[in-house]
Amino acid sequence: MNTFGHLFRLTSFGESHGRGIGGIIDGCPAGLEIDVELIQQDLSRRRPGQSKITTQRKEPDQVEFLSGIFEGKTQGTPIAFAVWNKDQHSNDYNDLKDVYRPSHADYTYIQKYGTRDHRGGGRSSARETIARVVAGAIAKQILAKAGVHIQAFVSQVGEVQLNKSYLELDLTKTEENIVRCPDPEIAEEMIARIVLAGKEHDTVGGVITAVATGVPAGWGEPVFNKLHADLGFAMLGINAVKGFEYGSGFEGTKLSGSEHNDIFVKTENGIRTKTNNSGGIQGGISNGEDIYFKVAFKPIATLLKEQKTVDRANEETTINPKGRHDPCVLPRAVPIVEAMAALVLVDHYLLNKTNM
Amino acid sequence: MNTFGHLFRLTSFGESHGRGIGGIIDGCPAGLEIDVELIQQDLSRRRPGQSKITTQRKEPDQVEFLSGIFEGKTQGTPIAFAVWNKDQHSNDYNDLKDVYRPSHADYTYIQKYGTRDHRGGGRSSARETIARVVAGAIAKQILAKAGVHIQAFVSQVGEVQLNKSYLELDLTKTEENIVRCPDPEIAEEMIARIVLAGKEHDTVGGVITAVATGVPAGWGEPVFNKLHADLGFAMLGINAVKGFEYGSGFEGTKLSGSEHNDIFVKTENGIRTKTNNSGGIQGGISNGEDIYFKVAFKPIATLLKEQKTVDRANEETTINPKGRHDPCVLPRAVPIVEAMAALVLVDHYLLNKTNM
Amino acid sequence: MNTFGHLFRLTSFGESHGRGIGGIIDGCPAGLEIDVELIQQDLSRRRPGQSKITTQRKEPDQVEFLSGIFEGKTQGTPIAFAVWNKDQHSNDYNDLKDVYRPSHADYTYIQKYGTRDHRGGGRSSARETIARVVAGAIAKQILAKAGVHIQAFVSQVGEVQLNKSYLELDLTKTEENIVRCPDPEIAEEMIARIVLAGKEHDTVGGVITAVATGVPAGWGEPVFNKLHADLGFAMLGINAVKGFEYGSGFEGTKLSGSEHNDIFVKTENGIRTKTNNSGGIQGGISNGEDIYFKVAFKPIATLLKEQKTVDRANEETTINPKGRHDPCVLPRAVPIVEAMAALVLVDHYLLNKTNM
Amino acid sequence: MNTFGHLFRLTSFGESHGRGIGGIIDGCPAGLEIDVELIQQDLSRRRPGQSKITTQRKEPDQVEFLSGIFEGKTQGTPIAFAVWNKDQHSNDYNDLKDVYRPSHADYTYIQKYGTRDHRGGGRSSARETIARVVAGAIAKQILAKAGVHIQAFVSQVGEVQLNKSYLELDLTKTEENIVRCPDPEIAEEMIARIVLAGKEHDTVGGVITAVATGVPAGWGEPVFNKLHADLGFAMLGINAVKGFEYGSGFEGTKLSGSEHNDIFVKTENGIRTKTNNSGGIQGGISNGEDIYFKVAFKPIATLLKEQKTVDRANEETTINPKGRHDPCVLPRAVPIVEAMAALVLVDHYLLNKTNM
Repeated sequence: MNTFGHLFRLTSFGESHGRGIGGIIDGCPAGLEIDVELIQQDLSRRRPGQSKITTQRKEPDQVEFLSGIFEGKTQGTPIAFAVWNKDQHSNDYNDLKDVYRPSHADYTYIQKYGTRDHRGGGRSSARETIARVVAGAIAKQILAKAGVHIQAFVSQVGEVQLNKSYLELDLTKTEENIVRCPDPEIAEEMIARIVLAGKEHDTVGGVITAVATGVPAGWGEPVFNKLHADLGFAMLGINAVKGFEYGSGFEGTKLSGSEHNDIFVKTENGIRTKTNNSGGIQGGISNGEDIYFKVAFKPIATLLKEQKTVDRANEETTINPKGRHDPCVLPRAVPIVEAMAALVLVDHYLLNKTNM
Repeated sequence: MNTFGHLFRLTSFGESHGRGIGGIIDGCPAGLEIDVELIQQDLSRRRPGQSKITTQRKEPDQVEFLSGIFEGKTQGTPIAFAVWNKDQHSNDYNDLKDVYRPSHADYTYIQKYGTRDHRGGGRSSARETIARVVAGAIAKQILAKAGVHIQAFVSQVGEVQLNKSYLELDLTKTEENIVRCPDPEIAEEMIARIVLAGKEHDTVGGVITAVATGVPAGWGEPVFNKLHADLGFAMLGINAVKGFEYGSGFEGTKLSGSEHNDIFVKTENGIRTKTNNSGGIQGGISNGEDIYFKVAFKPIATLLKEQKTVDRANEETTINPKGRHDPCVLPRAVPIVEAMAALVLVDHYLLNKTNM
Repeated sequence: MNTFGHLFRLTSFGESHGRGIGGIIDGCPAGLEIDVELIQQDLSRRRPGQSKITTQRKEPDQVEFLSGIFEGKTQGTPIAFAVWNKDQHSNDYNDLKDVYRPSHADYTYIQKYGTRDHRGGGRSSARETIARVVAGAIAKQILAKAGVHIQAFVSQVGEVQLNKSYLELDLTKTEENIVRCPDPEIAEEMIARIVLAGKEHDTVGGVITAVATGVPAGWGEPVFNKLHADLGFAMLGINAVKGFEYGSGFEGTKLSGSEHNDIFVKTENGIRTKTNNSGGIQGGISNGEDIYFKVAFKPIATLLKEQKTVDRANEETTINPKGRHDPCVLPRAVPIVEAMAALVLVDHYLLNKTNM
Repeated sequence: MNTFGHLFRLTSFGESHGRGIGGIIDGCPAGLEIDVELIQQDLSRRRPGQSKITTQRKEPDQVEFLSGIFEGKTQGTPIAFAVWNKDQHSNDYNDLKDVYRPSHADYTYIQKYGTRDHRGGGRSSARETIARVVAGAIAKQILAKAGVHIQAFVSQVGEVQLNKSYLELDLTKTEENIVRCPDPEIAEEMIARIVLAGKEHDTVGGVITAVATGVPAGWGEPVFNKLHADLGFAMLGINAVKGFEYGSGFEGTKLSGSEHNDIFVKTENGIRTKTNNSGGIQGGISNGEDIYFKVAFKPIATLLKEQKTVDRANEETTINPKGRHDPCVLPRAVPIVEAMAALVLVDHYLLNKTNM
């Protein structure tokens, strides 16, 4: 299904090489002044062609609002928007029309729907995340008023890992390099790794870490819509994501309970926890500490290498794609992770208004 | 919120020390003969006191159906059920009434709701998962008719890891030992680790792996309700879960795309993939291969050790719980993981009926 | 589907002659002190056997709460409840097991589900409305705190009509007679009409009018969840309801716009309308005036008369039911109408909290 | 909220004088060949300026599809569409910017949202129904394949009533006159009544009757989503609607049960009912007979007459609108009623696939 959220709902539409990508945001509170520039900034962080380590396809990605904003303010009515597609070169994809590319959605879409728009991946293209970035950028503006800020960064590319807690890093440096890693030295290693993958006509995966600060205690709706469950759901819905963990995550499973428990302490700022293995969420509800989590991205499937496969006629065949490709999706996925986190948080911000 | 699922919906209720735990299943197809014995089997796999490595509290956990089943068959109407609580010893919890136990939901529930049923964790108790196990056991029966089977097992306890693919294991051996690990040798190590934790009045975490076989190609609803996104959401909603990964997961982020891609091959059983890094899901839709995933559980927070904390009056205090505790929740969580997977899969089985 | 509401959600369960009728209320704000006596009052207003003009079957209808209330207060967690069935005399229905009673749901349930619990109508019995009355009685308690009160009354029985606006009536007199009509003279006529129907072993339909006072301007969620659309949906979901109108309703279609428009006037109590053809709702949103509407009930289908019909074997047959029947459901439906209105209003009360 | 439907979901957007009106249809089955001409036909039936008895504003209303259709077929992905606004003359509305027009949504939108797009009614304009007509026209195409057809017609204008059952009428004549009444003589009277209202700068209300044929037994989801409850909800969500009844409706409340019951009979076409007071729905589920219902429309609020009112500054004032107006919305509302009925029916068609 193509609607995300309970009260702040994004319904998205669009294919890679159709008329455009867009969506409708329903449930956005009225009276919010929209800063379009901030939305365009996130679209620019997501778009291809922004640096030497991303695909060189040019997509200007200008958002147009179609409803719901009047005299610069939200009206409480549905906010429709679109980013129109340009320069699609649909014919580039004719060769792949009837071929199931390995680890893409070609085969499964045909199995499910009996048909598919093959051009550039159609609906399964990561270009669809444009709608999420636009809606997330609006959600961020609501959250900013509530004192909540989200920052994501690349913490792993292939085997190159940033082995530091986010607390040891200066996250404001994230945007200072093209890979979006706040540690300049590791960033250089990551960039080199991606350049290598590009030269090899191959791709490389990695991990994005995200931190949300300023979330007050009380957000989250147990037992099923625990705050981290909704965050995980949001992240796993992003193309190429294979895993999600929050707080101590998979590593924390090796600790004993007495090591893992976060002791409550009394501070001048109220009750806090001494450590934060909980990742800011206890019993599915935010506890006022930073919320942090990691998202695993596989190396994306589009390679410029010869690969065996099967086609719609059930015949074995070989593909050997040419042209441009994106050796690593991680830098461009940073704003997508932030956007999805913002959608979840603003939803729980609104949900929590109805609990007392 | 306390409803799970889109078409096959479980709404759950109940607190640890209230009248009981139960739920309503809405959307269960009519005409299904219910095998109550299979449901009780899963409840027994979940219940405390079943072996020396789980808490010794006795909870017989007998399900009573309140509606929706007539002459042994589902009627298409809501199936309500309850497992009535017994022997609750509510007074045992009086000491903890106004104390925020570390890494429990005590503090966050008070922050969110301004009130809480403190007895045994109330709504935040893992006893709530009884409702999921009952509903999941019914979902399993529907899936079995469709040829789908789910098997979970413990693949890590603390540092003790089962470093084998599920393909190298005989999963039918899972229930042959009390820790529910299909490798008898590793199982012994795991049991020893849990016994040690118990002796130390401490707890230990770990990982559960699950495999679903027989899922045909075509289940999953992009772009948001990708099959793995719904599975991740389901798993992250289970108490103490900190992470989820499917297919190649976090490890797969280190591979290059050419290593990671699953090549399509033509077989006598139709189109298959040579490897299965995709975990049976491509573009959010099942591709006919086995679906497998891992779920990380933190060491649970209830220890029999002295710990500092803060109380509702904002005063620092110390707790030192006595009695019985559960050193490792993993063996009992195996049927819960299966249940939640079954709920997701049956939901997508029904959803997929409406796509063509 | 068996869940009603967006934020304040009732999921109901139960069959006429099963274990009981009940439900789960999810989304009820925390900290509400529940007055069980008020709930029982509404159950008593709904139950059979309360007067000479209703069926003489005795159903004590005592509610038991199963979760979500602790020390008398709601906890923000799901409130499960049940009214256990008693004295069901299930065998009374054996004769009707395979017969399609005219204008009942027997035939359609079999067509839809392939099976049905035939005892007393099973799930299609009006006994199911018990769950609505309990949930509605809780909703009323929340609304009362917000200054909102709902009063329904019988305004027509067969051809006997109360041709007065609710403004000309003293609604506090509604409960002073057994037919629940606030006009004592018309009430006598209505009672006589029902007694006659009873003697004839027949039934009679009618109309219930309801008024909600104290609803502030701003409730309602256009374009689809207009306040009156949700009210109509709620009313049409009650057994035997055939129509709904609000404000000027069907009669208002005969007026010209200049007669129908409600002129705004400035008063000491703020902006009001001079007339209220709008029924307190404009553009789907409450405007602060009284909300009023009418609900049409057909004469119920259970007669003690011989009727031709067809059975499950597709053979023509004749039924001739004996025993007790309910000549007019209207007096007992008054609390059901109020309950459903309360569920809608409390839902919009919560929804409106998220709009600004 | 701006999403309609459970499985076949329309999310609509747009204001009267914004960029356009449109929506996203999610859940439309894949592989459907879309006949755009049929969609344009319904848009033309809805648009202003089509005859002397509707407003003379010209709105060409050409639909553009933005996604979800490839090579003329639906893809199972979201179908976005828009009808772009033209010639909006937004400045015409400057005088009404701060005035609460009687019986419009001006006052309630300001009360709810604190802001509104005043141009032509903004979101509350009936122009929003364009999205419903487009989605409904697609729903009709799915239903047609299932043998289901919907026909609505005008059965009352002011006091001019068509006092015949739809069975006595030749519904194919509905489109032969500009008022869309299948009885030519009554149609003339209705047209005269509307012309009179236009001359008087006033408006007139009325009733639309709709019939759905070919619905098989089994559609409808008790207890809350009874087929008629979803139909009523859909109709009451249309601008200016004040009432809904199906089958015998309000008049049927005057019958006794023995008169009202529909006797089952055995026919060569299976089990049928002798009469159809049930309106094709029993227990909330279709029984295979024709489904028919009536929808009451108030006279619309926009008059070309002087009227007293109050403005945003809380001051009494007078409005005296000039220009064109629509004396009777009924003829143009016929396709809207059909569209909403189609959305409900296709939704239940899909829902019913999941019940067995």
